[in-house]
Amino acid sequence: MNSPIDPTNKTERLELALRSETPGDAVAILADMSPGDAAYLIVSSPPDVRNILLGLLAPEQEALVVNELPEELRNAALINRAPEALAKIVGQLDDDDSADILQELPEAITGRVLAILDEQYRSRLQTVLSFPEDVAGGLMSTDTINVRADLTLDVVLRYLRRHSALPPNTDNLVVVNRNDQFLGLLPISTVLVSDPAISVREMMITDQPAIHAEVPATEVAHRFERNDWISAPVIDAEGKLLGRITIDDVVDVIMEEADHSLTSLAGLAEEDSFATVWQSAPRRAIWLGINLGTALLASSVINLFQDTIEEVVALAVLMPIVASMGGIAGTQSLTILIRAMAMGHITHRNQLWLVGRELLLSVLNGLFWALVIAITTAIWFEDPTLGFIIACAMLINLVTAGLAGAGLPIVLRELKIDPVLAGGVMVTTITDVMGFLTFLGLAALFYG
Amino acid sequence: MNSPIDPTNKTERLELALRSETPGDAVAILADMSPGDAAYLIVSSPPDVRNILLGLLAPEQEALVVNELPEELRNAALINRAPEALAKIVGQLDDDDSADILQELPEAITGRVLAILDEQYRSRLQTVLSFPEDVAGGLMSTDTINVRADLTLDVVLRYLRRHSALPPNTDNLVVVNRNDQFLGLLPISTVLVSDPAISVREMMITDQPAIHAEVPATEVAHRFERNDWISAPVIDAEGKLLGRITIDDVVDVIMEEADHSLTSLAGLAEEDSFATVWQSAPRRAIWLGINLGTALLASSVINLFQDTIEEVVALAVLMPIVASMGGIAGTQSLTILIRAMAMGHITHRNQLWLVGRELLLSVLNGLFWALVIAITTAIWFEDPTLGFIIACAMLINLVTAGLAGAGLPIVLRELKIDPVLAGGVMVTTITDVMGFLTFLGLAALFYG
Repeated sequence: MNSPIDPTNKTERLELALRSETPGDAVAILADMSPGDAAYLIVSSPPDVRNILLGLLAPEQEALVVNELPEELRNAALINRAPEALAKIVGQLDDDDSADILQELPEAITGRVLAILDEQYRSRLQTVLSFPEDVAGGLMSTDTINVRADLTLDVVLRYLRRHSALPPNTDNLVVVNRNDQFLGLLPISTVLVSDPAISVREMMITDQPAIHAEVPATEVAHRFERNDWISAPVIDAEGKLLGRITIDDVVDVIMEEADHSLTSLAGLAEEDSFATVWQSAPRRAIWLGINLGTALLASSVINLFQDTIEEVVALAVLMPIVASMGGIAGTQSLTILIRAMAMGHITHRNQLWLVGRELLLSVLNGLFWALVIAITTAIWFEDPTLGFIIACAMLINLVTAGLAGAGLPIVLRELKIDPVLAGGVMVTTITDVMGFLTFLGLAALFYG
Repeated sequence: MNSPIDPTNKTERLELALRSETPGDAVAILADMSPGDAAYLIVSSPPDVRNILLGLLAPEQEALVVNELPEELRNAALINRAPEALAKIVGQLDDDDSADILQELPEAITGRVLAILDEQYRSRLQTVLSFPEDVAGGLMSTDTINVRADLTLDVVLRYLRRHSALPPNTDNLVVVNRNDQFLGLLPISTVLVSDPAISVREMMITDQPAIHAEVPATEVAHRFERNDWISAPVIDAEGKLLGRITIDDVVDVIMEEADHSLTSLAGLAEEDSFATVWQSAPRRAIWLGINLGTALLASSVINLFQDTIEEVVALAVLMPIVASMGGIAGTQSLTILIRAMAMGHITHRNQLWLVGRELLLSVLNGLFWALVIAITTAIWFEDPTLGFIIACAMLINLVTAGLAGAGLPIVLRELKIDPVLAGGVMVTTITDVMGFLTFLGLAALFYG
């Protein structure tokens, strides 16, 4: 339903070709697709079909299609290739994409691939590879067109005409001084519409700051979003131009970040939706195992109150309510904090305000739902004391949930622990344990 | 910690200016920020500071800053303005941004604002406003530069030089025939590097298809992602050019989609992280109320087995484990499906394969954890029968979780119900009820 019209039609024709065992037709249909559409088709296919499709790619489209695959699939497709074959593939790509691929391969293989590439491309790749993947320097391409400020636009025009093409997504030329230090940007649209006699200095824009190579990729994404940039120059500590980052790579960062927030909350770190059962089963098992541990912890709390439950069996009926409401409230606060963190909205100056807000929200909702559950319970079990006990437990657990859900991610981030992956388990463990402990503990006091 | 270096310094100076009650300084600091940075500062401030900052914006930056605010904040900032003031604001923006703003205002106000605008801008706005916000036509700007295929690049260059600037993010000129029908794209970088004597027809690219105006916004985003486009032309059913969509608006669609998946799973539909407690409390309460309903349903299942629990109180200790493991497994399957749906990876040809994969995963993990919990229980309570009972319940509940987590989103989507918002509650309700029912039901059979 969500699939694009053209690729789907091609997909149907392709499936027909595969079923009728006419691989020649399939190759022709694949060759006719854009690299992005072919990669999409491969990603959204079950593992066996994926391998068939990868094998059918025409040699001249293979590099571009493989480049569009998500990291895990790309690595699987490339890991067994000879260094010569890898060099041929990365040689067809922009240096930022090549660096992404090489960063994932074993170091020995990367070295052998680099040795095969021509010297100029190798040295450009090495600049990008000298930075980690997750900072501006690792996202950039070194492929920039630089001009000097004292030139006239006419000279720039003649200089550009000596190129057969500009690097992809070139919206700006980069203005540098004689030491290659960044001075400003000259939009190519300005070159097109302005009087050729004017100098670069007069027309260049200086209000888009360059990005330092060490800035984290997530922060790069935030700056692009906020300022609607198409590309941005990257500089080193001395202000020297190193390269440029383009919006297509930033979109990938944004999507990976969003995916991380969603899947890590369910303990599914970067799982491929179409991975084989044998790849996914152990990963899922680990998360279930951690949660079994926390469930056993909660059970051991209930275990302390066996006598009380034996006496008032209604406690067993009602206790999951207190724990489950705490879990829901805690997950809400946690999600709000994780989302604000992912958007870069949490700073030292506002985090206390946010925790205070979640706390106040949990007190308000705690009071309201304590009242509702008190009345429900008193009527259901004809026992006002039980109603009072569950109301107290509900209020305490919802306030705990708000505090834990809002406070934990901040503490975890300070400790450099992933607040998404660890936060979800910790918050529900706390609300389960607190829910059972307060409800059964208060009951033991009243009925004991 | 994640905040950009420059805005933060400015932010600190700004806070100092606000505290020392020198609003003149604050205005100057704000006026010096880019619209995106000023909007970011406003968004990440508590409500009272937000209003102060909005009041301090210089008139010439107000439209641009307000345009960068998220929908809810933007509406709150504009809802009480007079039509004349609104006309002044939207008059400074591109037509796609103006249309976004006008779409959110009451129809009577929109009509009065449109009446004030000059005729040419009004008619362009009306084209965009004739489409819903969430399709290609509602995302587009009508601001394109069109050329005819039979011109030479030299003529195009001279035509461009008559403009004082090109529309924002113009990477391509649009090639149309005499009926304004879309023929292809002419990259402005091609105009710059090519021989001016060549014709547009020879240099235009024809392998980037135009987008029909009715294509959903999410599908537009997928096509941009897959093909690394900066802009794409939009056409009507007759192939006539209507406008163009640019990557900055697509990035907003991508971020909204990702945000929807994350927050809806926690029942937080589009909540603003910094909203006041009075705005958020009722929304949170509704979600907690729905979950109280489902928790009461689970409790009523437990209630059926009061006698059995009174006899074997260990059942009360262990029953949350079965329910909680089911909830975790169900949420994992649900998240995988929701994510694959959001990425446009789920089609009719692969959805059954995916459900089958989740089912097989849940059988494998069900068997493994049933064994683990059987041994743990048999040792803890010195009761092998209890171990056998909980193992059966665990296996049944994990398989139910896999089926519900993977199957429900597909069914909900077919029924046009949001699989994220409804899916989360439904899956955990099913696993809670099934967990208590199978565990206590089997126990009643064995011990009854």
